[in-house]
Amino acid sequence: MPGTPPGRVVWLGPTGTFSEQAMRLLPALGAGEPVHTVEDALEQVRRGEAAAALVPFENSLEGSVAGTLDSLADPDAEPLRITREVLLPVTFALLVRPGTALGDITSVSTIGPVEAQCRRWLRTELPGVPITSAPSSAAAAQAVARGEFDAALGSVIAAEHTGLAVLADGIGDRQDTVTRFVLVSRPSAAAAPTGHDRTTVVLFERDDHPGALLEMLTEFAVRGVNLTRLESRPTGEGLGSYCFAVELSGHVAEANVGEALSALRRICRHVVFLGSYPRADERLPSARRPGTTSEDFADAAAWLRALRERG
Amino acid sequence: MPGTPPGRVVWLGPTGTFSEQAMRLLPALGAGEPVHTVEDALEQVRRGEAAAALVPFENSLEGSVAGTLDSLADPDAEPLRITREVLLPVTFALLVRPGTALGDITSVSTIGPVEAQCRRWLRTELPGVPITSAPSSAAAAQAVARGEFDAALGSVIAAEHTGLAVLADGIGDRQDTVTRFVLVSRPSAAAAPTGHDRTTVVLFERDDHPGALLEMLTEFAVRGVNLTRLESRPTGEGLGSYCFAVELSGHVAEANVGEALSALRRICRHVVFLGSYPRADERLPSARRPGTTSEDFADAAAWLRALRERG
Amino acid sequence: MPGTPPGRVVWLGPTGTFSEQAMRLLPALGAGEPVHTVEDALEQVRRGEAAAALVPFENSLEGSVAGTLDSLADPDAEPLRITREVLLPVTFALLVRPGTALGDITSVSTIGPVEAQCRRWLRTELPGVPITSAPSSAAAAQAVARGEFDAALGSVIAAEHTGLAVLADGIGDRQDTVTRFVLVSRPSAAAAPTGHDRTTVVLFERDDHPGALLEMLTEFAVRGVNLTRLESRPTGEGLGSYCFAVELSGHVAEANVGEALSALRRICRHVVFLGSYPRADERLPSARRPGTTSEDFADAAAWLRALRERG
Amino acid sequence: MPGTPPGRVVWLGPTGTFSEQAMRLLPALGAGEPVHTVEDALEQVRRGEAAAALVPFENSLEGSVAGTLDSLADPDAEPLRITREVLLPVTFALLVRPGTALGDITSVSTIGPVEAQCRRWLRTELPGVPITSAPSSAAAAQAVARGEFDAALGSVIAAEHTGLAVLADGIGDRQDTVTRFVLVSRPSAAAAPTGHDRTTVVLFERDDHPGALLEMLTEFAVRGVNLTRLESRPTGEGLGSYCFAVELSGHVAEANVGEALSALRRICRHVVFLGSYPRADERLPSARRPGTTSEDFADAAAWLRALRERG
Repeated sequence: MPGTPPGRVVWLGPTGTFSEQAMRLLPALGAGEPVHTVEDALEQVRRGEAAAALVPFENSLEGSVAGTLDSLADPDAEPLRITREVLLPVTFALLVRPGTALGDITSVSTIGPVEAQCRRWLRTELPGVPITSAPSSAAAAQAVARGEFDAALGSVIAAEHTGLAVLADGIGDRQDTVTRFVLVSRPSAAAAPTGHDRTTVVLFERDDHPGALLEMLTEFAVRGVNLTRLESRPTGEGLGSYCFAVELSGHVAEANVGEALSALRRICRHVVFLGSYPRADERLPSARRPGTTSEDFADAAAWLRALRERG
Repeated sequence: MPGTPPGRVVWLGPTGTFSEQAMRLLPALGAGEPVHTVEDALEQVRRGEAAAALVPFENSLEGSVAGTLDSLADPDAEPLRITREVLLPVTFALLVRPGTALGDITSVSTIGPVEAQCRRWLRTELPGVPITSAPSSAAAAQAVARGEFDAALGSVIAAEHTGLAVLADGIGDRQDTVTRFVLVSRPSAAAAPTGHDRTTVVLFERDDHPGALLEMLTEFAVRGVNLTRLESRPTGEGLGSYCFAVELSGHVAEANVGEALSALRRICRHVVFLGSYPRADERLPSARRPGTTSEDFADAAAWLRALRERG
Repeated sequence: MPGTPPGRVVWLGPTGTFSEQAMRLLPALGAGEPVHTVEDALEQVRRGEAAAALVPFENSLEGSVAGTLDSLADPDAEPLRITREVLLPVTFALLVRPGTALGDITSVSTIGPVEAQCRRWLRTELPGVPITSAPSSAAAAQAVARGEFDAALGSVIAAEHTGLAVLADGIGDRQDTVTRFVLVSRPSAAAAPTGHDRTTVVLFERDDHPGALLEMLTEFAVRGVNLTRLESRPTGEGLGSYCFAVELSGHVAEANVGEALSALRRICRHVVFLGSYPRADERLPSARRPGTTSEDFADAAAWLRALRERG
Repeated sequence: MPGTPPGRVVWLGPTGTFSEQAMRLLPALGAGEPVHTVEDALEQVRRGEAAAALVPFENSLEGSVAGTLDSLADPDAEPLRITREVLLPVTFALLVRPGTALGDITSVSTIGPVEAQCRRWLRTELPGVPITSAPSSAAAAQAVARGEFDAALGSVIAAEHTGLAVLADGIGDRQDTVTRFVLVSRPSAAAAPTGHDRTTVVLFERDDHPGALLEMLTEFAVRGVNLTRLESRPTGEGLGSYCFAVELSGHVAEANVGEALSALRRICRHVVFLGSYPRADERLPSARRPGTTSEDFADAAAWLRALRERG
C-alpha cells in the first residue's frame, strides 16, 4: 500500500486525544505508539527509531501545529517527507460517569480551544456551570473518572480508556471543523501520482525584498499550479525574515508542478520539499489553466528540441 | 494618548500567564481584568462592556491565536479595530519553592508548547526528570506551590502570584521568540500616521479561482505596499473556501495604502479592515518603490485632474 | 458637434491620395487643405495656423505613420490631442484613360506598398506587365493621364482629379485592410465619454530596467483596462531607450482609465496623453473585469472615505 | 563563417538606395542582386531560388518594414529564419551634378521620409527651394543626373551609380537614426550562442482576452529574459485580432530563453520563431535577474531530478 511504512509508527499522545482518533483512520499502520510531543515524534523518525510519525498539521485543537511546521521546515535538519494525510472531523462529546444526567452536572473540565468551540452549546445546555481547564482532553476525562469533575468535554475516544459514558455527541458550534494530520517518514521516492495529489513545500526568500512573495506565487500561477494553502512564518532568524509554507494541488512528478518547483529552487534561498501525497478528500483538481497540462508541456518540449537541433 | 481607551480593559487570563506580562507593557491602561477566553474578551468589547481587550495575535504559546483571528475576521460580526500592538519577548523561567536547588528537582510541570521550546535546556540541565503537562503555565506554578511538583517552567510573572522563586531565567532554545498581542476596541477614527504604522486586513476571495491570491497581492505590489505577514485561513464555509489575513507596512490614511485597500474592496467579496496602528518595534518601512510616495500620488492626481478639466 | 474644430483643417496631400478620401469621411469639416508632410500638418496646428490636422496614424500605405507617432509623442513639443479617428477601408482601383481595356495595358505605375498588396491580382490579371514605382498614388495617376503609363493602381479618388476611368475596383489580396487616420488639435477638454471610446498615450520608461513594460501593463490590467494596440518605439535618445505607444478601450473621464493613467504618471518618466475620443468602429468594449466598473470605483472610494473618517 | 549562406543573396532594390549600402556591410556575401520588393526577396528564399535575402526590418526609410514583418510572421507560409542583422546609420547626402554650388540650387528631389528627417537643414540651407517627391532616393538621384532637378537628397551610394557629386554629407536633424536590416534564410540549426545574441519571435494570442499580452510578457519576465522590442500587429483575421512581434536578448539555446519560448508555445495559438543571431551592436545583455543563469537552471533541474527519483 503506498505510503505505508513497514515499521513502528508514533503519534502525539496521550491516549484518548484526537491524535489517537486520527491514528485509527489508518488501520493498516496498526495502533502505533503515543509519544510526548510532536518534536519527539519527528526526532524519532529522523533518528530512524520510528518508521513514521502521525502529527497534527493544520487547525489542531491539541498540540502546537505551528511547531509541527517549524520542525518539518527546518532547512538544516534531516529532511522528512509527508506521505499521507488524514482529515479528522472534529466533534466533541460530553463524557460523564455512567448514570450521570445532564441536570446533575455542576462542573466541567476541558481544554481551552474545545471550550471556545462549544461556547454556545455550553451556554444553552449547561448555563452557569463552571468550566475548568485541563492540560489535554484525555486528562479532563481522567479527572472525571477520578470524580474530580462531573463531566469532560472532549474526544469520544477518551470514553474508552476511562470507562466514561457519552452523554451528548456532535457538540460544537461550527460543524465543519476538521483537523488535518500528516504521516511523516524519511525521504524515499514519492508514490506515483493518483490524479488527486497535494504537494507541500516551504519557501525561504533569498532576501527580504518587497514583492518577493508575489514573485514566488507568479512561478506557480504561470504554470497553472493552484495553491490550496499559504502561510507566512518567521524563520527564527530575526524579525522580518519570513518563510512561506505553501500547499498546492498536484504532484512533483507532474510537468507543471516540477517546473514550478524548479523555478522556485532557482529564485529562493531554500526550498524545503515536504512531499507529494494523495489528498485525503480525493478532491480532483479544478480545470487546469489552458496550456499547462502534462501533454502541453511534452509538446512544447518537443517543439523546442526541434528548434534547437534543426533550426 | 493615542490608542488608549478610557475604560475597562480585559485580557486573556488566568493571572500569571504571558498575557498578564503583556498587559504590564501598557501601564497607561491600568491592570485590566483577566477573562476566560479570547472570545469572551472580544465579545465584551463588542457589547460595550469593555472599552478594549488585549489578546494574543501571533505565535502565542497560550491561547488560540487562530481563534483570535477568526473572531476578529468574521464579516458578519460587529466590527472591531486594532489600535495598539505589544511585542512580548518570550523567555521562560524555572520556578521553584524557595530553597529548592537544581539538583533537588525530580518533577516538572509545564504546558506543551513551552516544553517544546525548552527541550534542549531540559535535556542538559534536568536529564531524565519527568515532565507533566498543565492546562496553563499559571496552573503549573500553582501546582508547584501546592507541592505537587518540584518545579514549573513558564512565565516569570507566575512567581509573583504564587510566592515561588526564580531558579533559572532566560531559558528557551530559540532566543528571538516573541508573542504579539493586540489591543482591540470598537471602531473610531484611526490615530494619525506615525511614519511606522502597520495595517491589518482580512480579505475574502470573491470566488475560489486560481490566481485570486496573486491578484490581491498584485494590488499591493503595484502601489508599493509591503506586506509583513500573510496567512490563509479556511472561512468556515466549507473546504477550499479561504480568506487571507494580511498585514502591511503603512497606514490607511496614506495614499498608496488607501488606494490598494480601495482596489481590494472592488475585487474581493469582503475586506474586513482591522485597523492601522503604530508598529511596536517602531521599525521604519523599507524604501518605497519609486513612484509610490504620497507626494507622487498627489502630483499624479493633480495631473489627471488637469487633463480631465482642460484636456 | 464634439471633436469638430471651427477652423481650417489640413491633411496630408497631395490631392488624389488616400488622405483625401479619409477627409471626405468627415464632411462637417469641409474639404480642408492638403499640406506637404505630416510634420507640416502638425506644426501648423501647434502654431495655431490650423485648427486641426487629419493625419494617417496606423497602417498607412502612404505617409510615414511612424513619423506621425514620433511627432505626436515628443514630450518636449507643444502638446496635441486626438479628437476623432477615421477608418478608411483600403481597396485599390486600376485607373486608366477612358477607353483602355485590360488587354491593352502594357505598363502600370503605382507605389511600392500598393504593389505589395496587389501582387496576386497583378500576377493573375496582368501577368508579365512591368510595374514602375511612383512617389505617390496621385503621381501615378497623373503620369497615366499624361500618357506615360497605361494604368495606375491606387486610390479611386485619384480618378476624379485626373479624368481617368476606373477599370477595376476592390483590388487587393487582403480584404480587411484599413488605414486609420486621426484628427489632431491643440488641447481642450475632452468630449464626454460615449461608451465606446479609445484613449491614446505614449509612455516613457523611467529607466531601462527589465520588466519596466510589464509593470506598465500591470497598471492597466489590475484596473480592467483593455489595450487595443501597443508598439515600442526608440526615443531617439540612443539605442535601447524606448517609449511605448499604447491605445486602450475607454475614456480618461472613466474611473479605471483615470486611475491607471495616474499610476503610470507616477512610475513613468513621461506620460504623453494624446486624447480620449470615440472609436470609429463604435465597437463596445468587452465585458469589464469584475470590480472595475465606475460604480465599483465609486463604492470603494466611499468605503475608504468612511474608514478614514470614522474608523 | 556563421550566418553566411553559400549562394545567391537578394536585397531590396533599386541600386543606389540604403539597402545597397547595408549589403556592403556584409562583404563576405558578395554584391548580391537587387529585387523589386521585400515580398519578392522573401519568396525567392522560400522557393529556394535564393540562399538568403537582406531586407529592412526596423525604421527603414524606404520599403515597407511592416510588410517585412507581416511576411516573415505568416504562420501558414514556409518558415524563414533571421541569421544576421546589420545596423545602417542613416545619414543623408545632398547630391548634385559636378560643379553645382549650394547657391545654384533651385529645386530638390527626394522621398517623403527623408525630407521629414532633414526639414531643419533644408529650412536653414535651402530656404524657399521647392522639394519634389520621388519614388525612391535612387530615382531622385537619376532625375538630377538627367537634369530634371538641381539636387537630390538621399543615400551617398546613389552618387556612384549616377556620376553625381556629394555637396553636403551627414545631413539629418536627428543624429542617431539607424535602419536595421536582417539576413533571412530557410531554417537550419542556429549558430551557437555568442553571448550577445538576439532572438525574434512572433506570438499569436490563443484568444483575444484582456491580459493576454501581460501573460505572455510574464513568461519572459519570470525567467529573466529581457525584451528589446515589442510591437502589436493586426493578424489580418479581422479587427481586434493581434499578434506581437517580440525581440529579446539571448539565444534559443540558453536555458531561460528556451524555457520561456516553450512556455509561450503552450499558451499561444502560434509561436513563429524567426531566429537567434548575434546582435550587430555586440551589446552585452544587462545583468541577469538572480536565479536565471544557465547554471541556475542546470542546478535546479538536477535538484528536481533527484527529488523525483529518490524523494
